[in-house]
Amino acid sequence: MKDLISIKDLNIEEIEEILEKSEEMEFVLKENKNLDIMKGKILATLFFEPSTRTKLSFTSAMQRLGGSVMGFEAVESLSVAKGENLTDTIKTVEKYSDIIVIRHPKEGTARYVAEVSSKPIINAGDGSNQHPSQTLLDLYSIKKLKGRIEGLNIILLGDLKHARVMKPLAYSLAMFGAKLTFASPVGLEFNKELLNEIKEKFNTNMIQTNDIYSAVNEADVVYACRIQKERFADQYEAEKLQKSFKITPEMLEGAKEDMIILHALPKVGEVDSSIDGTKYAKYFDQVAYGIPVRMAILSMVI
Amino acid sequence: MKDLISIKDLNIEEIEEILEKSEEMEFVLKENKNLDIMKGKILATLFFEPSTRTKLSFTSAMQRLGGSVMGFEAVESLSVAKGENLTDTIKTVEKYSDIIVIRHPKEGTARYVAEVSSKPIINAGDGSNQHPSQTLLDLYSIKKLKGRIEGLNIILLGDLKHARVMKPLAYSLAMFGAKLTFASPVGLEFNKELLNEIKEKFNTNMIQTNDIYSAVNEADVVYACRIQKERFADQYEAEKLQKSFKITPEMLEGAKEDMIILHALPKVGEVDSSIDGTKYAKYFDQVAYGIPVRMAILSMVI
Amino acid sequence: MKDLISIKDLNIEEIEEILEKSEEMEFVLKENKNLDIMKGKILATLFFEPSTRTKLSFTSAMQRLGGSVMGFEAVESLSVAKGENLTDTIKTVEKYSDIIVIRHPKEGTARYVAEVSSKPIINAGDGSNQHPSQTLLDLYSIKKLKGRIEGLNIILLGDLKHARVMKPLAYSLAMFGAKLTFASPVGLEFNKELLNEIKEKFNTNMIQTNDIYSAVNEADVVYACRIQKERFADQYEAEKLQKSFKITPEMLEGAKEDMIILHALPKVGEVDSSIDGTKYAKYFDQVAYGIPVRMAILSMVI
Repeated sequence: MKDLISIKDLNIEEIEEILEKSEEMEFVLKENKNLDIMKGKILATLFFEPSTRTKLSFTSAMQRLGGSVMGFEAVESLSVAKGENLTDTIKTVEKYSDIIVIRHPKEGTARYVAEVSSKPIINAGDGSNQHPSQTLLDLYSIKKLKGRIEGLNIILLGDLKHARVMKPLAYSLAMFGAKLTFASPVGLEFNKELLNEIKEKFNTNMIQTNDIYSAVNEADVVYACRIQKERFADQYEAEKLQKSFKITPEMLEGAKEDMIILHALPKVGEVDSSIDGTKYAKYFDQVAYGIPVRMAILSMVI
Repeated sequence: MKDLISIKDLNIEEIEEILEKSEEMEFVLKENKNLDIMKGKILATLFFEPSTRTKLSFTSAMQRLGGSVMGFEAVESLSVAKGENLTDTIKTVEKYSDIIVIRHPKEGTARYVAEVSSKPIINAGDGSNQHPSQTLLDLYSIKKLKGRIEGLNIILLGDLKHARVMKPLAYSLAMFGAKLTFASPVGLEFNKELLNEIKEKFNTNMIQTNDIYSAVNEADVVYACRIQKERFADQYEAEKLQKSFKITPEMLEGAKEDMIILHALPKVGEVDSSIDGTKYAKYFDQVAYGIPVRMAILSMVI
Repeated sequence: MKDLISIKDLNIEEIEEILEKSEEMEFVLKENKNLDIMKGKILATLFFEPSTRTKLSFTSAMQRLGGSVMGFEAVESLSVAKGENLTDTIKTVEKYSDIIVIRHPKEGTARYVAEVSSKPIINAGDGSNQHPSQTLLDLYSIKKLKGRIEGLNIILLGDLKHARVMKPLAYSLAMFGAKLTFASPVGLEFNKELLNEIKEKFNTNMIQTNDIYSAVNEADVVYACRIQKERFADQYEAEKLQKSFKITPEMLEGAKEDMIILHALPKVGEVDSSIDGTKYAKYFDQVAYGIPVRMAILSMVI
């Protein structure tokens, strides 16, 4: 594995291998051992769109591995501003570093950059397309917390149309044989192409619903995401949708005892904060799992 | 000691212990020894208000201890901007790091964050309330430069009403038995509550004056601070006050031979720059002492 | 060598010594060896003007040497904004770090800072004056790629009036006995003072031309730079000059077989991007050489 661009580039065996490596890394972290795998090595974080959370998670993973991080707080200050093209920027940054993590607003950028660069490229989000390290940590979280993925009732809930995280997650959960329910407000469903692709490739039965209540009652895993207000012309409408699609304590009364709630964070009201303290809430564990998973990815691309 | 929130949480013995540890660290630095105490460990600097000086001092201390630093150049870019609450931000950042240094414009924030976080929290300023690592390095500076604190004539000089650094310093100097004089322009005195608290707890005699000349003549230590112009409605008034409360070379003619001048910096005219080269000026030594003191604090909270 | 302020402070022997050290560093990098020369040491990058490229190159060099870097993303946030003078800023930063790399818009600043500071200062650009680490990596690139500097036909091409990189380069190439041709649009020639200085000191014959075609045909090395549009009142005029002074594939038809093209980057059209893939284009190698050269400089000032 030289690059990590899309979850679709990986088959089940390759994903399993990354998850096993992640488990090793989690063990190393728990034992408080010092790793020197990345000693003298440099990770460049090239974010053409802000994402403090993802950047810091990669930064933490690299530092835990004994490596250094070279960040671009404001990419505009890069020579991009002086009119330099992306190819030149990459051909420069690869001379300074050993691995490049890139986020870019345009779909397909990471793939293009991987072709240009002689150093490993990790896609940390290209438009609304892929964000494979997030998908891998989502899969890892479910496996760790539920013991398996196959056969689980998993509900993806929220603004499925816009959330980048959801599309590759649905795809890879289907690959692992989960039973999928997609719960979203009317108009914010997944697009048809994705559903057809999943159906064709994995022969998965998927349920679509706008009824959040019954969906949550059936679930082994609820994966929620926020309504992406910035994509709405009418903010009042967005607010209303968000309120109608909120996970509340009452909603959990009928839930399975061992149901878990995941969320890529930040959450801004779509999960009532009184739920944070319950046994269901596992989103902060999920954040923690991001570190060993990204340590595994970094160690495998180099 | 898990957290460092307020100097008032510490008794004399605990402060003495930190100062002793700081002396050890200063020795290590002088010997040019490499410390691996923090190898593989990560410090997160979470500044919701800019303070390059404090942030860099902690960064330097952590790097000198062999650890890594994860900085937030612009905290607005954190998911805070997307509407995330502070609790979620902390519960995320604590997964990426081992110690969190936080500065926040609202009083009480650091204490709240320490309750939420399972990782050590160091308060690097919460509103106009506390900034305990600064207070500790001030105490350390006086002890190193004068051999003791008890019985010294110490003048706190300047905008005592607004300067955050001054209140906890007055409190802890009283705790250590210094003789205190507070010299400020009319209207910029300490508030009564602080004076009453100090009097009650430590039975300290304090002198208040608006006469900067005679105050300086009596002093073993002059601790100056700038007029915080940004708090004044009338900038002309602020300028005038600053000029009237400036330490000048003439003022030092009657000073004790071994008097020292300290300042938390930046200084912007309240100490004439011609004084920098004199034997009295010790503020740059004070900056240097910040490193071993913060190394001690970091090593003690972990 | 305590500081590196201007290429003019160095004689040929001293430059040769740095270039030899750079070669050692390049070898260490190739062998993938871990260096601990800078373990526990801190580099402060103090950029009062943005230059991501230079900053990252120094950052990479320091990290490759096992050291840490303390960056100032936005120097305005430094206390400079609160009205602090530069001397105080330096006297503070030197307490946090072991080496300071400074870029400042005002000519002479680095020299002044070196006088104030007890720690080594590396000038990373002071106005349009000097940028010695760039000059050294330019010399290193030519020596590595062509085997020597003396006697080579070297063309400096572009906006010679404004490009900071060109003046110290012309000076030092003359020092090493290169034959120099200066090709620029009318009005963007080097100033007379520089030409007189070079002539006087090194007795170099220099050709000035506005004919880019014939210049390129004679060259062993073409060193191009962009038209600095931001210095032009008339943007239309700047665009026109840039187009007229572009290196095109046709222009290379008459070039020597082993001619090389260098560029300090970013390039924004003055070298046709179809040239990137040809044997002539060596600017990305030049970027890579920046790392061992800066590693050498860092290791030699400490």
